[in-house]
Amino acid sequence: MGIHQYFQSLSDLENIYRCPGKFKYQEHSVAEHSFKVTSIAQFFGNVEEKAGNEVDWRALYEKALNHDYSELFIGDIKTPVKYATAELREMLSEVEESMTQNFIEREIPSEFQNIYRHLLKEGKDETLEGKILAIADKVDLLYESFGEIQKGNPENVFVEIYSEALATIYKYREMASVKYFLAEILPDMLHEKGIRKTELPELTNDITAQALKDDSK
Amino acid sequence: MGIHQYFQSLSDLENIYRCPGKFKYQEHSVAEHSFKVTSIAQFFGNVEEKAGNEVDWRALYEKALNHDYSELFIGDIKTPVKYATAELREMLSEVEESMTQNFIEREIPSEFQNIYRHLLKEGKDETLEGKILAIADKVDLLYESFGEIQKGNPENVFVEIYSEALATIYKYREMASVKYFLAEILPDMLHEKGIRKTELPELTNDITAQALKDDSK
Amino acid sequence: MGIHQYFQSLSDLENIYRCPGKFKYQEHSVAEHSFKVTSIAQFFGNVEEKAGNEVDWRALYEKALNHDYSELFIGDIKTPVKYATAELREMLSEVEESMTQNFIEREIPSEFQNIYRHLLKEGKDETLEGKILAIADKVDLLYESFGEIQKGNPENVFVEIYSEALATIYKYREMASVKYFLAEILPDMLHEKGIRKTELPELTNDITAQALKDDSK
Amino acid sequence: MGIHQYFQSLSDLENIYRCPGKFKYQEHSVAEHSFKVTSIAQFFGNVEEKAGNEVDWRALYEKALNHDYSELFIGDIKTPVKYATAELREMLSEVEESMTQNFIEREIPSEFQNIYRHLLKEGKDETLEGKILAIADKVDLLYESFGEIQKGNPENVFVEIYSEALATIYKYREMASVKYFLAEILPDMLHEKGIRKTELPELTNDITAQALKDDSK
Amino acid sequence: MGIHQYFQSLSDLENIYRCPGKFKYQEHSVAEHSFKVTSIAQFFGNVEEKAGNEVDWRALYEKALNHDYSELFIGDIKTPVKYATAELREMLSEVEESMTQNFIEREIPSEFQNIYRHLLKEGKDETLEGKILAIADKVDLLYESFGEIQKGNPENVFVEIYSEALATIYKYREMASVKYFLAEILPDMLHEKGIRKTELPELTNDITAQALKDDSK
Amino acid sequence: MGIHQYFQSLSDLENIYRCPGKFKYQEHSVAEHSFKVTSIAQFFGNVEEKAGNEVDWRALYEKALNHDYSELFIGDIKTPVKYATAELREMLSEVEESMTQNFIEREIPSEFQNIYRHLLKEGKDETLEGKILAIADKVDLLYESFGEIQKGNPENVFVEIYSEALATIYKYREMASVKYFLAEILPDMLHEKGIRKTELPELTNDITAQALKDDSK
Repeated sequence: MGIHQYFQSLSDLENIYRCPGKFKYQEHSVAEHSFKVTSIAQFFGNVEEKAGNEVDWRALYEKALNHDYSELFIGDIKTPVKYATAELREMLSEVEESMTQNFIEREIPSEFQNIYRHLLKEGKDETLEGKILAIADKVDLLYESFGEIQKGNPENVFVEIYSEALATIYKYREMASVKYFLAEILPDMLHEKGIRKTELPELTNDITAQALKDDSK
Repeated sequence: MGIHQYFQSLSDLENIYRCPGKFKYQEHSVAEHSFKVTSIAQFFGNVEEKAGNEVDWRALYEKALNHDYSELFIGDIKTPVKYATAELREMLSEVEESMTQNFIEREIPSEFQNIYRHLLKEGKDETLEGKILAIADKVDLLYESFGEIQKGNPENVFVEIYSEALATIYKYREMASVKYFLAEILPDMLHEKGIRKTELPELTNDITAQALKDDSK
Repeated sequence: MGIHQYFQSLSDLENIYRCPGKFKYQEHSVAEHSFKVTSIAQFFGNVEEKAGNEVDWRALYEKALNHDYSELFIGDIKTPVKYATAELREMLSEVEESMTQNFIEREIPSEFQNIYRHLLKEGKDETLEGKILAIADKVDLLYESFGEIQKGNPENVFVEIYSEALATIYKYREMASVKYFLAEILPDMLHEKGIRKTELPELTNDITAQALKDDSK
Repeated sequence: MGIHQYFQSLSDLENIYRCPGKFKYQEHSVAEHSFKVTSIAQFFGNVEEKAGNEVDWRALYEKALNHDYSELFIGDIKTPVKYATAELREMLSEVEESMTQNFIEREIPSEFQNIYRHLLKEGKDETLEGKILAIADKVDLLYESFGEIQKGNPENVFVEIYSEALATIYKYREMASVKYFLAEILPDMLHEKGIRKTELPELTNDITAQALKDDSK
Repeated sequence: MGIHQYFQSLSDLENIYRCPGKFKYQEHSVAEHSFKVTSIAQFFGNVEEKAGNEVDWRALYEKALNHDYSELFIGDIKTPVKYATAELREMLSEVEESMTQNFIEREIPSEFQNIYRHLLKEGKDETLEGKILAIADKVDLLYESFGEIQKGNPENVFVEIYSEALATIYKYREMASVKYFLAEILPDMLHEKGIRKTELPELTNDITAQALKDDSK
Repeated sequence: MGIHQYFQSLSDLENIYRCPGKFKYQEHSVAEHSFKVTSIAQFFGNVEEKAGNEVDWRALYEKALNHDYSELFIGDIKTPVKYATAELREMLSEVEESMTQNFIEREIPSEFQNIYRHLLKEGKDETLEGKILAIADKVDLLYESFGEIQKGNPENVFVEIYSEALATIYKYREMASVKYFLAEILPDMLHEKGIRKTELPELTNDITAQALKDDSK
């Protein structure tokens, strides 16, 4: 029992790969994803602050840095499995929760247990920081699928991931972060070499159009 | 020019490997190292807080998360080169600084340039947060070399890295973080399977003895 | 819809790795594991036949070849998660079953659907062929963990896998296959170079002793 | 001497790669190829049975599963070498045969030697099962080259492999399996994303036209 | 101290990769690059000899084979860093020189030190052999970037490398080797499958046009 | 047809790996092996020169650099196959020879064909340079197997390779190069960390003793 086990577990997150078997050009470990999501969240935190919103920075970094630590316990459960039924989803989330609690009780010294209970709890809540995490997580996913599509990976799953990620980002389109993303970052992405010949521009238009239609309702 | 380039550059840090060609059992990208250092710094921040010291959490996360971003510009310059002469070291540090400034001016939109100048500046200063970063950086390096030694990599360079990292950590032995590390974490590390037969226990004793001798002067 | 999708899915099984992130010396894809389990089952089928038992060869090959095809749908769910509660285990098994059914209905032409319903159903039943599959599956797992231990991987998980696999094989020790395995194959394994210095010989003795004790009850 | 060596040799087939140095997007081990060929042969066996032909299932599985085991002894001899002269081809085939016999005599316990002499002999004979193996072997090769072409590998060797494999399949076009393949599977393959822009559709037409011309003779 | 260390260091050059993190389709170690540059230089040496120029073959092979040995000491310093200022460039070159000298004094037995001082000194001088090395080094770099562009790597850095390498080769266009390269080899390269759709033909024309303009001045 | 194809073929030698599937810690491409053999031969050439023997340097470099180019045509034929019968060995060597001739006639422009006939012919003849090549080839093989044994690879094949390589080197023990190797390099090798616990010291003694016995006959 001890922090030594926690420090070693960080390295295990270097060996858990996202969507195993799908990425052909660049694989991404959970550790790498966590780094990128935290860096993206850091940028969006600054956008929100510039827009006059107050950011709890400690909370934002905590949420982003630790948001996928529990992948250590449950591994890569494919999304269709995870969401097969609401009941199963609930149950898996309970198992994840209880395995995290077990880990904390077994490995974390008692004086730090409350701290890690706080750090490792689900971070995507309704606070500003929770919403920034939700967006940053999807923006990184968008970039990961974009990278494969740009290099010519014909697997349709990346087009699906791109669409799903972008549609989720759109849901938060009232936020300053998402406004900045849609106005400044996404257009640059779609002007990258070779993208015009892919499905991405049309797909992006469809998702935008759908969002506008939803808005006008 | 734009944040799109910054977001893409995060992914380039997944492709820059530490000590290229040396790790035979597990390689570590700069992105993965940054994640681990930030998580280790997060733990030490809590130790310091428990010890009654005030932690500027935003500063701590900023320093740890971004501390190796400039590896993007300068690549892996071998340590002996970096420190060949004080003059060269100075000059390389100026080049790194100026390439970071160029990147910020070229890619970061003007309204965010001051923020990124602050985020990407050298973080290892004399503040409590700067010192926690210095320790966390070495603790991760210690774990990286420990992993190779435990698995049987005969390259002497990992013994040298272990020694140098531990000696640097010792320099901060007045800090609560380092006290905790030496009393609670290091002993667990040395009790891992197969370590007793390596040079690590004796090496660790030598470094401790040397430190005690320095203390008593 | 069509057999084309089924043929392509075979190749996806080359990209799903067993125990991702654990094997440091040799990784094993689900496709490779399936090949080895079928070859091992083929040997045990011959042992049973020599011992005077009738083997339904078509059934044996079908069970062994297709026994992990459904990993395609559910991915690598870590064992502790899978068995966290009896309820969850049941539910996951239902999801797996229903995803397999969906795949068959969606991709397999109707004239072949009944055949694939038969081929892809759970094969580890109480028939002789079902039991041979159960043993062959564990023998391959034993060899996979043995390979890592022999090469010096210090991760305790392989000792646990070895023990669990061997204990499961022991449960079938009334079968001619397992008698042959224990008398002729396991001793050769434990005489391999470097194994005497590991925990494996003692561990094996403990499991045997426990089994004998159970027998004498 | 013993089955232990045979079980370990299965794992060596995970380390022998097909066409080493050619596949850039997805490599295929001999173990993986054997799994896929057996699964494809299993499908074609069902097609033949539906067409009213009697299938000896045990023979079919034995042939498919073990058809490349002897790659263990001879390694990857490039096709042009193998077929350089009829004399050399004959001689290599004798060497392969004699090395397989040696292995059986050296490693397989005497009571199982006849069984393995049967299992490891050349399977592509004039029986229905031998012909299904010949087709299944080429279908997997076709899929392997198709995968590289679809992802954009410019090496001409994959176009050659595709053509040679398809032409060989065509030779068996009187069989129900091949009729099914040409009518139902190949068209789906050629409708995959991005294939229309490659040479494959034209190439396929040429091979078909040639076959029809041969038929009408 | 001894030649043993030198022999082992050759193997370290198999672990130092060129432009780490950039090549997605085929990586190239410094050892592999050295082999190719020497083989290319060997060809150009023959071209020069045919053109009536006298080639010092020993010098040519020595220069080509050993030209990147010092990468062992300095690692991969990114080109923009290396050339940031003339002063830094000078200093890095001094450090490289002095680390090579240290290595020779520390590892090479005294009776061979003068030989290795000669072998490991900078080879790109104004002799015919020095110029052939300069060209061969760039031709290999051209082929490395060509390989990535042909396979569809969208990273702009390869287009930049191609341009820079070709422009440097052009500088030596008075030499028989370069004349042969431009007249016989480059056109074949640009006729490779898929190249017509890339930027390379236009880029090549621009570089040629610029060179002609320079010539006519 | 052209030198372009020859230049591209150099890169194919980066993708042909030695003893595929055997090396677990460090793989070696034919290109890398060629670089190391040439560097080792360069050293031994200097030893011979110091011993008063005249070295034809151009011949030495040509032999070493190009000695495995024909692996391009024949691939990795396992040693036991190659030497199965004297007749087969002869025949394979004829095939290799005739494929090399075909390549030269097909790809090399006529004005260079004689040069490449000379460069690509078998180099291990009875000249001093041919003998240095034979030794250098085995020394590199010795180092390759040594690397695996030192890191703990339990596969017996590396002990066999070490023995066979050393025994072959011993056959040339009248040469100054081999005397230097045995007196100065081999002892350093056997003093490397962890080697004392392996079979190598005893094995080396046995080979030496056998050689002395042969000498005294």
